[in-house]
Amino acid sequence: MFASQLTRKIRTFTRSLTSTCRHSNIRRFSTMETSGEVITCKAAVARGPGEPLVVEEIKVDPPKKMEVRMKVLYSSICHTDIDIWKGTNEAQRAFPRILGHEAAGIIESVGEGVTDLKKGDHVIPIFNGECGNCVYCKSEKTNLCETLRVNPMKSVMVNDGKCRFSTMDGKPIYHFLNTSTFTEYTVIDAGCAAKIDPDASLKKMSLLSCCISTGVGAAWNCANVQAGSTVAIFGLGALGLAVAEGSRVRGASTIIGVDINSEKFIKDFINPKDLGTPVHEKIREMTGGGVDYSFECAGNVDVLRESFLSTHDGWGSTVLLGIHPNPRMLPLHPMELFDGRKIIGTVFGDFKGKSQLPHLAQQCINGVLNLDEFITHELPFEKINEAFQLLLDGKSLRCVLKF
Amino acid sequence: MFASQLTRKIRTFTRSLTSTCRHSNIRRFSTMETSGEVITCKAAVARGPGEPLVVEEIKVDPPKKMEVRMKVLYSSICHTDIDIWKGTNEAQRAFPRILGHEAAGIIESVGEGVTDLKKGDHVIPIFNGECGNCVYCKSEKTNLCETLRVNPMKSVMVNDGKCRFSTMDGKPIYHFLNTSTFTEYTVIDAGCAAKIDPDASLKKMSLLSCCISTGVGAAWNCANVQAGSTVAIFGLGALGLAVAEGSRVRGASTIIGVDINSEKFIKDFINPKDLGTPVHEKIREMTGGGVDYSFECAGNVDVLRESFLSTHDGWGSTVLLGIHPNPRMLPLHPMELFDGRKIIGTVFGDFKGKSQLPHLAQQCINGVLNLDEFITHELPFEKINEAFQLLLDGKSLRCVLKF
Ligand SMILES: NC(=O)c1ccc[n+]([C@@H]2O[C@H](COP(=O)([O-])OP(=O)(O)OC[C@H]3O[C@@H](n4cnc5c(N)ncnc54)[C@H](O)[C@@H]3O)[C@@H](O)[C@H]2O)c1
Ligand SMILES: NC(=O)c1ccc[n+]([C@@H]2O[C@H](COP(=O)([O-])OP(=O)(O)OC[C@H]3O[C@@H](n4cnc5c(N)ncnc54)[C@H](O)[C@@H]3O)[C@@H](O)[C@H]2O)c1
Ligand SMILES: [Zn+2]
Ligand SMILES: [Zn+2]
Ligand SMILES: [Zn+2]
Ligand SMILES: [Zn+2]
Repeated sequence: MFASQLTRKIRTFTRSLTSTCRHSNIRRFSTMETSGEVITCKAAVARGPGEPLVVEEIKVDPPKKMEVRMKVLYSSICHTDIDIWKGTNEAQRAFPRILGHEAAGIIESVGEGVTDLKKGDHVIPIFNGECGNCVYCKSEKTNLCETLRVNPMKSVMVNDGKCRFSTMDGKPIYHFLNTSTFTEYTVIDAGCAAKIDPDASLKKMSLLSCCISTGVGAAWNCANVQAGSTVAIFGLGALGLAVAEGSRVRGASTIIGVDINSEKFIKDFINPKDLGTPVHEKIREMTGGGVDYSFECAGNVDVLRESFLSTHDGWGSTVLLGIHPNPRMLPLHPMELFDGRKIIGTVFGDFKGKSQLPHLAQQCINGVLNLDEFITHELPFEKINEAFQLLLDGKSLRCVLKF
Repeated sequence: MFASQLTRKIRTFTRSLTSTCRHSNIRRFSTMETSGEVITCKAAVARGPGEPLVVEEIKVDPPKKMEVRMKVLYSSICHTDIDIWKGTNEAQRAFPRILGHEAAGIIESVGEGVTDLKKGDHVIPIFNGECGNCVYCKSEKTNLCETLRVNPMKSVMVNDGKCRFSTMDGKPIYHFLNTSTFTEYTVIDAGCAAKIDPDASLKKMSLLSCCISTGVGAAWNCANVQAGSTVAIFGLGALGLAVAEGSRVRGASTIIGVDINSEKFIKDFINPKDLGTPVHEKIREMTGGGVDYSFECAGNVDVLRESFLSTHDGWGSTVLLGIHPNPRMLPLHPMELFDGRKIIGTVFGDFKGKSQLPHLAQQCINGVLNLDEFITHELPFEKINEAFQLLLDGKSLRCVLKF
């Protein structure tokens, strides 16, 4: 039952790929001066819901006021990309579009007014940006910036309502989640780029762009897991396992993982399909009444209800991380809130991306957090459809695309 | 907009009835020795859903182990009594039953093992009791006792699963909410009686038995309203106005009241019926994006949704006080929790009744809290059906029944 004994057996875990290709990339990138120019490069364009991405040449405009253009060196795929690619929520459809939001790279050039970032800086894009000046950014209570907060509906730049991407014949290609990282070059708002230590492995740091920050932050900032806390995690993708890693660091005494895919092992693992009873009953039985904290990382309302009921009455908290593209409402009755169970949602683990990510990156560099087992696959960028399939099939945690 | 200017105009407010009849009652009560005997007294018995209460003679057994028998001197009527009387939630029906849970009185006798209470003590009954020994009572995170927590389904004593009330021909009469106060004598668990200063007005103290504690506690313990906070209260019965009083004491800068009954005035008052738009839009407009805290005190899921949406995104919290007997689920989509709005439920304002109520009573005695305007009517116990009607018609805040 002890978190320190936490083991994950991932069938296709690839241990060999740990060094970063940063230096060779920097060399390649610095040989020509592109600042102020339109760049022609390769991108994986989503042309319609569920259609294979098309890797094609596109044009990327220079960054405008308070924007930066970034050379993407690594990008991985998160479940949120899959939801938008599938187009489950019709209101969020916008095609052609460049998806992707979990990445790391180097600043190629900066637009007017950008003073905190310069060419050559190592950055990770933040889908939930931080302008630093609005009432939200100035409040300690939220990480939702007024203008740069996560918004899957948004498909153009704030500055002028236009796209910086276009097809070779001049048609606009839409942006996604403030980031659009399935392209060799992307343009993002300066408030959506967090600068990190240039000595860190950019490949690993790409995970901080979404899954690690969101999962670890959910455990640290939202639940505030403490030594001895009991935890249940529903959905053991990269987000769920990042919650487990954050909980392990905090000294949780029990970390129960729940997944319908039995290849996703952690020590205390439950596959609801193997049970004759609802999983919350099993968890309550295992923990003397329920866990202190549960986390929904599957994006399914029935799972959300189970995770809610698996916490201890009186003080249990459920943190919602999963994105629910389905229009179904919360399956909770108001009176169920009277049992003292709480439910809260989190975007990006409640981290303020631009100001707090450099410290989190440092904690990864120092070995406080162990990211070694999150990258299960690596593929060249061109094989992005293969990488999508790996996540769809539940075979990868993160498959990092190398540009 | 300032809370200090808060005014309430209650049409039928009765200022004359402020003195307590404590002394005369004690005299009457101590003339005969009833300890250990079955007491015959008057009670208002609910015989069927929505049927007028029948004031009749009943028998009240002596208290058993860890129980006390209490002489009720004042009892008022709360909306929860009305819901159960109506029988809206069929699963909670149990007739004949003695309703009532907001009261004050004097200990007549104590059962075996009761050491902290004795004959003559002034007490208020607590529908959400505190045994003091269970894992919940020992936790600082909850006021839900393992055995004595509020439970509208429960209709018998914990000790032996039996009733202490019976009809004159020996048929059991069910208990309600750990208290059953619409009777001259009631038997309750010792963990459901909070001892208070004998110098306090028992009539006023009866309000601490439910509405004041729940409303003030919602503002203090659940929302943690601070100086300068903005507040919206949905439903201006005694609970809603107790939230307003708790918020005033804490220094809230804006207290907006929402009610469909225009006779329920507070300074910043909105009647949703007068608006062409949803009330949350009006509140957001009045407060630059929404209030810090909203409180649902009406027991209606549509109102709950409005109160949720009336808080500021990023940090708003909604506290649910209203009891929802209707089976309708929470009308919230999981993704709405991603806007940083929270929702929590509270029983008894999160106060631990037995241990924390004496201090709250002291704060009332000291004038920190002003309870003057909550008792709008007073009637003799026999006129209980009239008192029910006053609350049903929205004409009273609290009508105190005098025994
Ligand atoms: N809140 C945020 O800021 C934020 C950020 C990124 C991703 N997300 C969301 O978090 C969720 C997880 O992302 P991920 O990339 O780790 O996804 P993933 O696809 O890698 O993992 C999801 C896991 O859930 C499991 N699962 C599916 N249905 C289940 C069920 N019924 N019961 C138990 N387990 C089930 C799958 O087998 C899989 O292991 C997604 O919904 C994603 O959109 C949220
Ligand atoms: N959580 C707890 O521990 C606890 C304790 C006691 C009572 N309660 C519940 O709190 C609620 C309030 O109790 P009370 O005794 O003050 O009730 P009350 O009947 O005196 O007041 C309710 C108020 O809500 C108003 N209202 C009704 N429908 C409305 C609507 N659609 N929009 C706006 N206002 C509306 C009514 O006009 C009335 O003024 C009830 O649901 C009661 O059961 C909860
Ligand atoms: Zn993501
Ligand atoms: Zn901002
Ligand atoms: Zn009540
Ligand atoms: Zn207890």
